[in-house]
Amino acid sequence: MTAIRIDGATRLYAIVGNPIVQVKSPEVFSELFAGAGMNAVMIPMHLLPERFEDSMRALMGIANLDGLVATVPYKAQAVRFANRLGPTASRIGALNALRREPDGTWTGDMFDGAGFVRGAERKGGVLRGRRVALFGAGGAGSAIGCELAAAGVESLSIIDPQRERAAALAKTLRGAFLTCRVDAVEAVPSGVDMIVNASTIGMRDGDGLPGNIGPLTADTLVGDVVVSQEPTPLLRHAIRYGCRCVNGRDMLNGQADALMSFFSRG
Amino acid sequence: MTAIRIDGATRLYAIVGNPIVQVKSPEVFSELFAGAGMNAVMIPMHLLPERFEDSMRALMGIANLDGLVATVPYKAQAVRFANRLGPTASRIGALNALRREPDGTWTGDMFDGAGFVRGAERKGGVLRGRRVALFGAGGAGSAIGCELAAAGVESLSIIDPQRERAAALAKTLRGAFLTCRVDAVEAVPSGVDMIVNASTIGMRDGDGLPGNIGPLTADTLVGDVVVSQEPTPLLRHAIRYGCRCVNGRDMLNGQADALMSFFSRG
Repeated sequence: MTAIRIDGATRLYAIVGNPIVQVKSPEVFSELFAGAGMNAVMIPMHLLPERFEDSMRALMGIANLDGLVATVPYKAQAVRFANRLGPTASRIGALNALRREPDGTWTGDMFDGAGFVRGAERKGGVLRGRRVALFGAGGAGSAIGCELAAAGVESLSIIDPQRERAAALAKTLRGAFLTCRVDAVEAVPSGVDMIVNASTIGMRDGDGLPGNIGPLTADTLVGDVVVSQEPTPLLRHAIRYGCRCVNGRDMLNGQADALMSFFSRG
Repeated sequence: MTAIRIDGATRLYAIVGNPIVQVKSPEVFSELFAGAGMNAVMIPMHLLPERFEDSMRALMGIANLDGLVATVPYKAQAVRFANRLGPTASRIGALNALRREPDGTWTGDMFDGAGFVRGAERKGGVLRGRRVALFGAGGAGSAIGCELAAAGVESLSIIDPQRERAAALAKTLRGAFLTCRVDAVEAVPSGVDMIVNASTIGMRDGDGLPGNIGPLTADTLVGDVVVSQEPTPLLRHAIRYGCRCVNGRDMLNGQADALMSFFSRG
């Protein structure tokens, strides 16, 4: 762990959200920047909804601020501050990172899904050709669905109690990824060999599985976006069957990698 | 030296200026905050003149930003962002610190002079009753003149090549401090037992004394606001006469103390 320094020449990255105390990015990125030899820190900024527009414009006008991370509830609203969007952000209409380009314009993209994919790959999980059941078609589910399709999964079966948003996500992904079979479904179909929970089920004590997940084998790849100390109910279940698992922490680590590349134009 | 940490709960203080790379406050205050057990950092913010107004308004709207330090060229412009001013800021029409009060309003004051006074006191210098020659009636000179009068000096003779600003400062101080004799003068009068350089003379190689300073004795208290590695010409001269000296570093340390008290409502 490299010591964090702040001086007059320090470049700023800010994470904006409401609330903000829960975010881990200031610690994670300030240390990654220091470790990479960059004189930069990431600072938490608590933006209230009624000031979001003005605050964003002002922050982007600060000459030594080079990047922004957007978290809840600002991922969709942040899109309009980008001069150009990467592929995932433009498909799902939300972003979580903005960087200042050398010409002063701003590029935005969404890395929630890329973090999951990098996390899965780090755990040795092969995604190409997988038949995936995806629980949750909200922000995280949309981003992950997008990246899984881009990573070459064979099919995506999207399950969400809000059937309309599952259907809308399926339609978006079908339009963007012609070789991936995408459907909004009511239950996990047979033949699935990867399960991803991108819903909030598993966050609260007493939560169970995100749905009826059908039979698992040791070859099933199981992922859960919920960040918790203990394995989530889904991952506890998966461990019992000897499955390869990707947890919320893996996703955050993968996302940190992806964001560091983005911020350094890697 | 305590390690600086930044996490989601970190409170922000920002120093605003143009340029910003030269400022020392981010290092000094981030370490003072850490040493005082506060989860807070001071970050440099490079505000461009055309965005100053909007940026200040936006920064003051960030819910976890508790204070601002203003440096060149924004000390006068920053005054209008305060809901109330401390005595020195209101007398000289400039401030260098703003803090958010519990009710959400902002209090501003100017600590450039308080830093000098604290620095002199730390060096064991007695100010009450001194007959002072003050070189420089700009921002630093005004603030120092104000605090010296408040500290009970007997007289202040203000010398500045811009005679009008020396006269204006003298008039302001006479109105505010009825028991201090204040004059704008051309040369150091006899009987002076304290010399303060608040001009920029001594910053550049080849600079000499700020003016004809007359005879020194070991009882003369000599101060210089110029921050430099080596003693300034004035202080080199004073050291030769065995005078007690207050240098730019003493002033910055004194100001750091004063600002920490201000930010923590001490």
